[in-house]
Amino acid sequence: MRVLVNISYQGSQFLGFQIQQNGRTVQQQFEKILKRMHKRHVRIHPSSRTDKGVHALEQYFHFDTELNIAPPQWKYVMNRALPDDVYVNDVMVVDDDFHCRYDCVGKSYRYKIYQSEHKDPFQCGLKTYITDSLDTEKMNRAAQLFVGTHDFTVFCSQKTEVESKVRTIYESRIKITENGLDYIVTGSGFLYNMVRVLMAFLLEVGKGKRNPEEVPELLMMKDRNQVPYTAPSEGLYLERIYLTSSALINDFGSDIKIHQKKSTQND
Amino acid sequence: MRVLVNISYQGSQFLGFQIQQNGRTVQQQFEKILKRMHKRHVRIHPSSRTDKGVHALEQYFHFDTELNIAPPQWKYVMNRALPDDVYVNDVMVVDDDFHCRYDCVGKSYRYKIYQSEHKDPFQCGLKTYITDSLDTEKMNRAAQLFVGTHDFTVFCSQKTEVESKVRTIYESRIKITENGLDYIVTGSGFLYNMVRVLMAFLLEVGKGKRNPEEVPELLMMKDRNQVPYTAPSEGLYLERIYLTSSALINDFGSDIKIHQKKSTQND
Repeated sequence: MRVLVNISYQGSQFLGFQIQQNGRTVQQQFEKILKRMHKRHVRIHPSSRTDKGVHALEQYFHFDTELNIAPPQWKYVMNRALPDDVYVNDVMVVDDDFHCRYDCVGKSYRYKIYQSEHKDPFQCGLKTYITDSLDTEKMNRAAQLFVGTHDFTVFCSQKTEVESKVRTIYESRIKITENGLDYIVTGSGFLYNMVRVLMAFLLEVGKGKRNPEEVPELLMMKDRNQVPYTAPSEGLYLERIYLTSSALINDFGSDIKIHQKKSTQND
Repeated sequence: MRVLVNISYQGSQFLGFQIQQNGRTVQQQFEKILKRMHKRHVRIHPSSRTDKGVHALEQYFHFDTELNIAPPQWKYVMNRALPDDVYVNDVMVVDDDFHCRYDCVGKSYRYKIYQSEHKDPFQCGLKTYITDSLDTEKMNRAAQLFVGTHDFTVFCSQKTEVESKVRTIYESRIKITENGLDYIVTGSGFLYNMVRVLMAFLLEVGKGKRNPEEVPELLMMKDRNQVPYTAPSEGLYLERIYLTSSALINDFGSDIKIHQKKSTQND
């Protein structure tokens, strides 16, 4: 039986999602619980491998089990055993050919920035502090130029190891908040560090160091050195995972380009 | 020259204020910076030694220095060197006979509780999660019965090592918030774990397990076993430090009883 789990987590005390030799990760928390229940190692497969310090408002993983446990009971058992910075929102039984990573056709991220005269220790790990004044109208103009299908080589980490760097962005916009701004971006998938590089570029635009008008030509270049910045992980939230084309179409219309995942894609 | 520093910190990643053999504390962060600047150990003296996990919206400490540095420069230098979960709000030069602990005539604490159907991992370390429904009217009635001068033996940790357990409470009330409640309490001083024990008792009242009417007789008893609970540290915030009688009188009127600190008092 394949079980699909919808979770949230506060990333600041995790070294990321993926299990590591040493250190606290989200995967480790769940595999520890599943091992205790199955008396053997059970591997979980997430929709997204978030980095150290990155949060998730919605993340999915699946695993296979021979245990005859109903979804509400799975949820109860896991939440009882989990630490306070991870929470299981929902558990479902899915078809055996469903795969969290390959069936993921889209993801939304939100990057949170706060601005104030003084740094606020209670935002530590949760939002990125920017002192410079930002031209949000310009930032939003630049953000919208990412929408569409483009090669994002310029806007990803040099560590990216995938063949195709073409992704489709369905929405990309700045939203003003009470004490700062959020950058909201939804796409077919994201390259390594891509949202943090996009955010770093938009901050440069906000500070007047880069121009929205540069975006089209940057997207044509394939030189990562053109945007040599990466915004810190603490402001980044994985906000939504699209597991079906219909959910994407529902939010962005039927004429959007849908990418089906191949097993080699790194996101 | 005696320097007074007003700080805030997020307590979840600290083992408390006071320096320890091993582990990250607030005192350690500041003494490390001061040692680097003075080329010798400089001890800092706080108004309150908060426990592991307890936050401070306002806390003070003082230290003596021979360095000729102006207050705004102290603030700048410290904030540059501090981690993101501590912040210096203000720095002042004070008289040589001023003492953060002995001159402290009052303190306010706030205890934050959130209630919702689901645990929220983003409140982890910042608010205490209570699932039971709470009778806030009853809790507020009980809270107000703490106001006045009483022996608080019943409402403190057995580890309390002070002679007199008499304290004056100036305000004690429940405030309804968007997703839960805050307990706000201001007093001449607090015994070890006192706010967390008061909170635990008020939660028992909210759940219907204890009655507000018990408060007067509990205050007469001197048996700690009468209230054998302590609320978790994560919801507790040191909110205000009163360093002068006039500040207290300004907030609570001129007929209040003011306690002047003796060096033996444990708070």
